[in-house]
Amino acid sequence: MPTLYIDLMSQPSRACYILCKKHGLPVDVQMIRLDKGEHKKPAYLQINPLGKVPFLVDGDLRLPESAAIMAYLCDKYSLPDNWHPGSSSSSSDQAAAHQQQQEQQRRAVYESAVHWQHLNIRAGCMRLVFHTVIGPRVFKVPAVPQVAADGLKVLQQALKDLESYWLGGGSRPFMTGQQVSTPDLLCVCDLEQLRMMVAEPSQPQLEQLLAPHPIVRQWMAAVRAAVGPALYDEAHGKLAAAVARLAAAAAAKPAARL
Amino acid sequence: MPTLYIDLMSQPSRACYILCKKHGLPVDVQMIRLDKGEHKKPAYLQINPLGKVPFLVDGDLRLPESAAIMAYLCDKYSLPDNWHPGSSSSSSDQAAAHQQQQEQQRRAVYESAVHWQHLNIRAGCMRLVFHTVIGPRVFKVPAVPQVAADGLKVLQQALKDLESYWLGGGSRPFMTGQQVSTPDLLCVCDLEQLRMMVAEPSQPQLEQLLAPHPIVRQWMAAVRAAVGPALYDEAHGKLAAAVARLAAAAAAKPAARL
Repeated sequence: MPTLYIDLMSQPSRACYILCKKHGLPVDVQMIRLDKGEHKKPAYLQINPLGKVPFLVDGDLRLPESAAIMAYLCDKYSLPDNWHPGSSSSSSDQAAAHQQQQEQQRRAVYESAVHWQHLNIRAGCMRLVFHTVIGPRVFKVPAVPQVAADGLKVLQQALKDLESYWLGGGSRPFMTGQQVSTPDLLCVCDLEQLRMMVAEPSQPQLEQLLAPHPIVRQWMAAVRAAVGPALYDEAHGKLAAAVARLAAAAAAKPAARL
Repeated sequence: MPTLYIDLMSQPSRACYILCKKHGLPVDVQMIRLDKGEHKKPAYLQINPLGKVPFLVDGDLRLPESAAIMAYLCDKYSLPDNWHPGSSSSSSDQAAAHQQQQEQQRRAVYESAVHWQHLNIRAGCMRLVFHTVIGPRVFKVPAVPQVAADGLKVLQQALKDLESYWLGGGSRPFMTGQQVSTPDLLCVCDLEQLRMMVAEPSQPQLEQLLAPHPIVRQWMAAVRAAVGPALYDEAHGKLAAAVARLAAAAAAKPAARL
């Protein structure tokens, strides 16, 4: 049975977790506490020398990168094709060749979406939240406001492109078409992380960032529905608890100043 | 025939170009001048609303993202499997099932490498070069030194991980095994961009960055050899000319100050 190492505070970890639980995959999920630095301790570095989560071990196979982990699990367990369009077998038959071409193109669109998210939604969210909230509060490293500002710029452009290009201005419910796929999951889990911005009320909040993008907000709800709200909320439970603590601390702050 | 829009000054554009030329693919290559802002002009935005290169058009298919473009071309033209491990067909035969599992695992390793490069080698190189040289000189936007510094940090860690994890400390010649694949191409084209740092002699230079990583340097030479040095150098010709101009300007600067 493959072992999946994650922390539900990590965005791509949640995406992998949701995929596994949604399909009841026989995967042993091991929790690694990032806030305790477990990912940088020798025991874990022996498993994953890159010192990150998520990470999958399946026999001799050692696999970093959430998108690759999800693709592999889809492949191994023959999950429904919409999550990660699989491969077509070649054929000399003309009708089959036409179908093969369509499958190639569908797969290509999927690949473009899953690659796009890295340097757009993910890079934007990650740098903004890390260099305002997570860096100083969780890892005790100083926030660099200029990097947060650069992340915000990337994120704002990414939200525009998500709405107009990937969701076709509302003409398709999910990034790659009519059904949910792994890039949707990855992007939504990243955007959810922005809820941690409650810790810094002077910084842009998730609702503000989504305000100009109703189609993105609608799509986030559609991804939650496609996953199943109970599973979605369970996967985000640890984050929600952290957000509640951050909000309480932020609310207490002005009072403390009086 | 597909049309590929690129600028050879763009790292991922070069990777796509090299793949096409290496295999003599019937692809119509169209040059888009980033330095003239052609990628943000209405004529190009009608083709690619994301306003970036590379971009591929093949009939109805419109494809951003270099890694997806290369995967699609490998698929469409059935390129040798090492560049982008294709798909296995399922089988109930036991020997075939074992082979299928091996192919699944090989593909998974490939996927992890091609996803890894985005937020490591690419994010590091891109932010360092953009926020020192390219931003202010090409696009007339101010460099943000803190973002360059953050990019440098990402890059230095990425070079370590490239050497020890992906190249196995020298135990394999290429990132995914014994043969060159598209993640090698993407990473090498990004690292080459660092030659533009000659414009800022006080900043870290490519040779300095590679000095602690002889295995990375050796691998860069191996990728050039695998591609074919003539094609590799042709693809990097425009960059080399720009680097020569930047070096000349940097050399003239102290003299001008006398």
